[in-house]
Amino acid sequence: MTLKNLKNRKWVLSSRPKGMVSKENFIFEEEEMQEIKENQMLLKNLYFGFDPTQRGWLNDMKSYMPPVQIGEVMRSSTISQVIESNLTDFKPGDFVQGSFGWQEFAITDGTAGFMNASKIPENIPPTASLSVYGVTGLTAYFGLLDIGEPKEGETVVISGAAGATGSVAGQIAKIKGCKVIGIAGGAKKCRWLTEEANFDAAIDYKNSDLSEALSELCPNGIDVVFDNVGGEFLNTSLMLINMNARIVLCGAISTYNNEVPSPGPSNYMSLVINRAKMEGFIVLDYLERFPEAISSLREWVEAGKVTYLEDVQEGIENAPDTLIRLFTGQNFGKQLLKISDPD
Amino acid sequence: MTLKNLKNRKWVLSSRPKGMVSKENFIFEEEEMQEIKENQMLLKNLYFGFDPTQRGWLNDMKSYMPPVQIGEVMRSSTISQVIESNLTDFKPGDFVQGSFGWQEFAITDGTAGFMNASKIPENIPPTASLSVYGVTGLTAYFGLLDIGEPKEGETVVISGAAGATGSVAGQIAKIKGCKVIGIAGGAKKCRWLTEEANFDAAIDYKNSDLSEALSELCPNGIDVVFDNVGGEFLNTSLMLINMNARIVLCGAISTYNNEVPSPGPSNYMSLVINRAKMEGFIVLDYLERFPEAISSLREWVEAGKVTYLEDVQEGIENAPDTLIRLFTGQNFGKQLLKISDPD
Repeated sequence: MTLKNLKNRKWVLSSRPKGMVSKENFIFEEEEMQEIKENQMLLKNLYFGFDPTQRGWLNDMKSYMPPVQIGEVMRSSTISQVIESNLTDFKPGDFVQGSFGWQEFAITDGTAGFMNASKIPENIPPTASLSVYGVTGLTAYFGLLDIGEPKEGETVVISGAAGATGSVAGQIAKIKGCKVIGIAGGAKKCRWLTEEANFDAAIDYKNSDLSEALSELCPNGIDVVFDNVGGEFLNTSLMLINMNARIVLCGAISTYNNEVPSPGPSNYMSLVINRAKMEGFIVLDYLERFPEAISSLREWVEAGKVTYLEDVQEGIENAPDTLIRLFTGQNFGKQLLKISDPD
Repeated sequence: MTLKNLKNRKWVLSSRPKGMVSKENFIFEEEEMQEIKENQMLLKNLYFGFDPTQRGWLNDMKSYMPPVQIGEVMRSSTISQVIESNLTDFKPGDFVQGSFGWQEFAITDGTAGFMNASKIPENIPPTASLSVYGVTGLTAYFGLLDIGEPKEGETVVISGAAGATGSVAGQIAKIKGCKVIGIAGGAKKCRWLTEEANFDAAIDYKNSDLSEALSELCPNGIDVVFDNVGGEFLNTSLMLINMNARIVLCGAISTYNNEVPSPGPSNYMSLVINRAKMEGFIVLDYLERFPEAISSLREWVEAGKVTYLEDVQEGIENAPDTLIRLFTGQNFGKQLLKISDPD
């Protein structure tokens, strides 16, 4: 790779979306790259990772991290290769994960966005560091085990079940001896859940009466709800919870692009009748326990107990459209965008 | 008292309310009393206790206890005096608490409704067994301490704060070293909260912008919400919670008489951003720990650290109207109805 006159193409936030995020909220820009300084390295981004939570970063409101500013490169997780480095911990050729955003290259001291650069272990596929071993899988791990606390024999219901987080959460619940019901959109995703991902049953919300299907599949009620979706699903599941049920609030993807606030779960008083709780969490709080979780996930993946899918699109010019795939249900598995081959 | 030809007047549920409960949902009936059998006693009811949760018992739906059936005496807590007894644990003259419903007399083996007959200790005022030492005070105790887990220096916000449960919850939070803000309807109740009940501040929701007033009084955010009211209050408070906040769902009195389901808290995703939980409980689950709680409450009352009010109406013919007082905000303190003087 010639470093002279290296150009960096990047997607910059140009306006805040009202309602559904669109390509028009971003501008594709080009800039000259500078030389790296003494405490820096040059990264070439190979993949971007996509997560529903990115939609929240586009709103100008208090959240668990500051919003992306107008004029800033869109924040995202990344897999990169080190091209040049003045840092002792990183040498050219290394694969690293981090959060270096929607751009082809990054000059960095290693710190960035919500995740600093760290080397990807050599014995895992690099993309797995963003999917099953990345925040996606880790969100499933900590949300299900620490907040959901599933016990053997309990019934666990997962919305967005064919998503990268939901599918891992469901498989962990199976490992813990639970009955696991997944909710997903379309026959193909539902078939994958029961045939490949070991779910006991799946409900295609596009072709079922959700309340009826859930009642039928959960004759003993629901003990753990792992909710990625919000909206109608959350409200319906509240009517079926058991005593001391745990509702894990992982996300509310059905609401992120709404222009007006979505209605809240009107059945929330079921939490009182059933002495139940509804609790949120942010995976980044568990940073210190990531090694523990990754080690468990690797053991399960290698033993064939956890399977995962990656949905890889191509080309940096498609970054905004790839984000939108998450909200239209087009993605099937962890949404990634391939930017470049490694050297 | 002449037991011959003793007549019992009682309020029986005649129809299920749609929307606000009204006197028309009950019929006032009279019946001849029978002789007591070998394993029974005759109680004369002196007081009925009123609780917002009674409204829920009138709906034909699954809840934490079965609904009151059409034709049944309206269920309620009671203070009674033993008139005749074939039971070794109860002798004529004893004061007992229980749940013998809206009637003048009850023949019973001691078991009833949600609370069996138990003797009221001689050194407390009998009515206190339904208010500060009854489920009302106990709900405050377990909800605040076990679910809310307030820590010294934290900010606690209580809705329905001048109510029998809210006012005790706030005073316990003060004992635990918290800053306590109460929300109540009207200047008189607010004044009582700050002048008599030791609250740091009170918001008169009838004459304030709730969101503005709360923001101003909670510059460091809210750590514990003790919610008796639901609706707008719950939703507003969600926007002001701190990291790891606890929202104690005690009730939702603002919604109990709505004909259509009230909107849920649309800001519930604040639970995710703030890694917070919203949890319900039912005081009857803590039955085994009632002695511990009553002993703490007595200590605090006797030391002047917890004060409480009782709102005593008179006459069994006013039972339905007295229940309605709870939902119109007319009551100030634990709502009781005096039925009879003791012998």
